Amino acid sequence: MSDWTVGVDIGGTKIEVIVVNGTGELLGQGRRPTVFTSPKSLLEAIALAVEETVAKAGGELAGIDAIGVGVPGQVDPVTGEVRLAVNLKLRDYPLGDRLADRLERPIALENDIRLAALGAYRHVRHRLKIDHLAYLGIGTGVAAGIVLNGRLFRGAHGLAGEIGHVIVKPDGARCNCGNQGCLETVVAGPAILRRAQTLWPPGEPQPADVAAVFTAAESGHPVATAVVEATGATLAQVVYSLMLVYDINTVVIGGGVVSGGKGLRQPFVQELERLRAESPLARLLLDHDKIQLLPDGMNAGAWGAVWLARSRHTPLEVSME
Amino acid sequence: MSDWTVGVDIGGTKIEVIVVNGTGELLGQGRRPTVFTSPKSLLEAIALAVEETVAKAGGELAGIDAIGVGVPGQVDPVTGEVRLAVNLKLRDYPLGDRLADRLERPIALENDIRLAALGAYRHVRHRLKIDHLAYLGIGTGVAAGIVLNGRLFRGAHGLAGEIGHVIVKPDGARCNCGNQGCLETVVAGPAILRRAQTLWPPGEPQPADVAAVFTAAESGHPVATAVVEATGATLAQVVYSLMLVYDINTVVIGGGVVSGGKGLRQPFVQELERLRAESPLARLLLDHDKIQLLPDGMNAGAWGAVWLARSRHTPLEVSME
Repeated sequence: MSDWTVGVDIGGTKIEVIVVNGTGELLGQGRRPTVFTSPKSLLEAIALAVEETVAKAGGELAGIDAIGVGVPGQVDPVTGEVRLAVNLKLRDYPLGDRLADRLERPIALENDIRLAALGAYRHVRHRLKIDHLAYLGIGTGVAAGIVLNGRLFRGAHGLAGEIGHVIVKPDGARCNCGNQGCLETVVAGPAILRRAQTLWPPGEPQPADVAAVFTAAESGHPVATAVVEATGATLAQVVYSLMLVYDINTVVIGGGVVSGGKGLRQPFVQELERLRAESPLARLLLDHDKIQLLPDGMNAGAWGAVWLARSRHTPLEVSME
Repeated sequence: MSDWTVGVDIGGTKIEVIVVNGTGELLGQGRRPTVFTSPKSLLEAIALAVEETVAKAGGELAGIDAIGVGVPGQVDPVTGEVRLAVNLKLRDYPLGDRLADRLERPIALENDIRLAALGAYRHVRHRLKIDHLAYLGIGTGVAAGIVLNGRLFRGAHGLAGEIGHVIVKPDGARCNCGNQGCLETVVAGPAILRRAQTLWPPGEPQPADVAAVFTAAESGHPVATAVVEATGATLAQVVYSLMLVYDINTVVIGGGVVSGGKGLRQPFVQELERLRAESPLARLLLDHDKIQLLPDGMNAGAWGAVWLARSRHTPLEVSME
């Protein structure tokens, strides 16, 4: 049991935990609701989720090699500090140290999207010999995690891949960041919902969430269809941009908006086809093999947390060879 | 003299050559017009330009350590083959081998924008301890060369940084690549000229080239001013996108459109200020130190060719430590 590793993904609604053995076999998984009342309560919820899942897998905490943790926000992977995680209400909080004290195991921390990129990379590498991958996470926000030459790429401030704030419509809607027309104001969940609500026929009951917009589109509602089609097309252009900028082997797309929204798939694929039909460069860079949806039910972030924990002695250079 | 290195930059109008000694001192420079009549004539022009410049610097070809060559097009730096250089009318041409035969010195080949990134990186590193840099070249086309962790980043097909074909206006003008609304149809030289000509008041003599548009803007012509202002603003947004995507320390901007166009500078700086004023993220990523224009008269490509030639045994991993 001394080669078991734990991966934790702290999400906006739940904390997901997996336990994996030395050969990469999944031994157990568990979850608990995310707690927002205080940093201490969140810490306790994470610790309990880990303890329960390890016990359920038939192991003991003392035998666990290391624990990797994905956090939705800015983290310092060297100190294990969470600099800012707005949704978790954490700022400058030493989550790594506190968890290490509480669980008495080595802890490795990273941003969740980045860990999802690592998890997706390892997953794709099982089949394909690739070096460069981007994970595009589309949910409440939009961001990319980047693996270059088999390693996580963080950039100068740990902000590489923050494409949610690339300005795509200079005169578009105001974004939370302060600027106008950021990508997040177009393809993220809240943006899709807002646009549908704005255009919705007066008198008809409005969709309450993104899922409702997708459902309406699937049953042929003209406004929902138009919004979903425009979003799918923009998403395809974003994937093409990522390919041009990084020239990566593979883009893996995940996140609430995609897994919930079959409706997005068709216009997305259609726009990719249009780009390919028009341009030899697009044909090369958008080859069918290169674009994948994250398999349903796979928590790439928790898997990435496992791989991070295993190479925790060099947290900035996780190699997957 | 055995530590002298030659750098060559093959441009659309001229071949520029520099000779540098082991301590990085510039010993001589020369140029010849680029020749388009045949690959063989081009080869001979390059060879003559190198021979003349080395002689002018007081050296002999036999004493030259190695020769680096920047090519405006797709090259394979391992084999030294030019895959496609449309402007030079080269396709699948073994320029590296032919030059090595003709000059009897080791030759290292790379794309010109990428070498400019390497040259700019080395230049900035004299003053600042940076790891990541993008060189943004804006002339007839638009492309970026990328240095990450002190090394050239090429991507899976040697296309990393081909941002000229990122789609910024989905319903915009048709691009040479086949798609619509690529960045190149907005901020490159021909695009600026075309837009000015389209909007030009009937009856007035139209600007004949980009320089004329900039001159007209400087003397207050309303159409030229509007076109230049819009282009400068878009350029600022492109620089911000590069920062978000790569989270690099420094962007260096060069190329014909920028060096010729003082007029672009003011709207560019103004838009950067606007983005900073609105967003803390933009303030962090667009810090004043991070954005630089290539010094007038510096041929970053030729300098990059020198550094490439010096580390030619590992052409894919030119380290600048």
